[in-house]
Amino acid sequence: MDTLTAIHTRRSVRSYTPEPVSEEEIQTLLEAAMTAPSAGNAQPWTFLVITDPGLLARTPSVNPYAGMAAKAPLAILVCGDLTAEKYPGFWVQDCSAAIQNLLLAARSIGLGSVWTGIHPMEDRVAKAKDLFRLPDHLIPLGLIVIGRPKGEQQHANRFAPEKVRRNIWQD
Amino acid sequence: MDTLTAIHTRRSVRSYTPEPVSEEEIQTLLEAAMTAPSAGNAQPWTFLVITDPGLLARTPSVNPYAGMAAKAPLAILVCGDLTAEKYPGFWVQDCSAAIQNLLLAARSIGLGSVWTGIHPMEDRVAKAKDLFRLPDHLIPLGLIVIGRPKGEQQHANRFAPEKVRRNIWQD
Repeated sequence: MDTLTAIHTRRSVRSYTPEPVSEEEIQTLLEAAMTAPSAGNAQPWTFLVITDPGLLARTPSVNPYAGMAAKAPLAILVCGDLTAEKYPGFWVQDCSAAIQNLLLAARSIGLGSVWTGIHPMEDRVAKAKDLFRLPDHLIPLGLIVIGRPKGEQQHANRFAPEKVRRNIWQD
Repeated sequence: MDTLTAIHTRRSVRSYTPEPVSEEEIQTLLEAAMTAPSAGNAQPWTFLVITDPGLLARTPSVNPYAGMAAKAPLAILVCGDLTAEKYPGFWVQDCSAAIQNLLLAARSIGLGSVWTGIHPMEDRVAKAKDLFRLPDHLIPLGLIVIGRPKGEQQHANRFAPEKVRRNIWQD
């Protein structure tokens, strides 16, 4: 799928068919995510691939907006690895770029996904660390829920001219 | 360009030909950036499009790793707009997703780009606010320098199996 088409038809997909996501598709998503840019190319990220139905059923306890995970075939928890940073504090940007690559890769191979936020909400961070038994140096940033979309995704263009200025902001 | 090709051949490009970037291309980049997902669809971002040669020449003063801006035809400063957030604290993730869309859109239309970091380094934030005359509610996150690449971009795949686990991290 063309890049600009994927960017403009990537929508949050919260309803999935019962079909599983293949191991080859999971690999495609992870390769896309890990090829994102990062500060100093530190790649300060880790990926927990959640496919166990019992665990997926418990996953909505982490985030009240992640209810769709209970009926999804796949979720991927993206965490920052604070021990891997070269430039402290950039891990959120690095992991977010990785997530956006993952969402676009999913769209391009016919999967639907939704990014549900964890960090910086401390209660969600604590619940995710407990449920998935994360060590202290991994900070859960986002839970990406993935499956085969039930419907079609419409084209979106959120361009807003008032959010753009030229050269100097105040003039 | 195919989405996965753009993801895997997007490399940091720091050397550009003298050709300008067209207004149509700038529009394509901004539309892609603004169609990124954001927490609560708040779209808490703004974009300063820098094309003035005198200002581009002064731009490296913001970040010691942004020297290439002095000879680039275009830079886009992506800022978080704290007044637009619905879920406070998510603006870094939202703006980073927008930047990644912008980088991939650039790659897909034959432009090269590099993401140079500003926030959370306070000295860079202060210098960018001063140079570009940003109001208090706009926080500069990243300066994206853009132009026509002088060389070819090689395929990259940074997949690292040790960064992936299944279902439970510690077991």
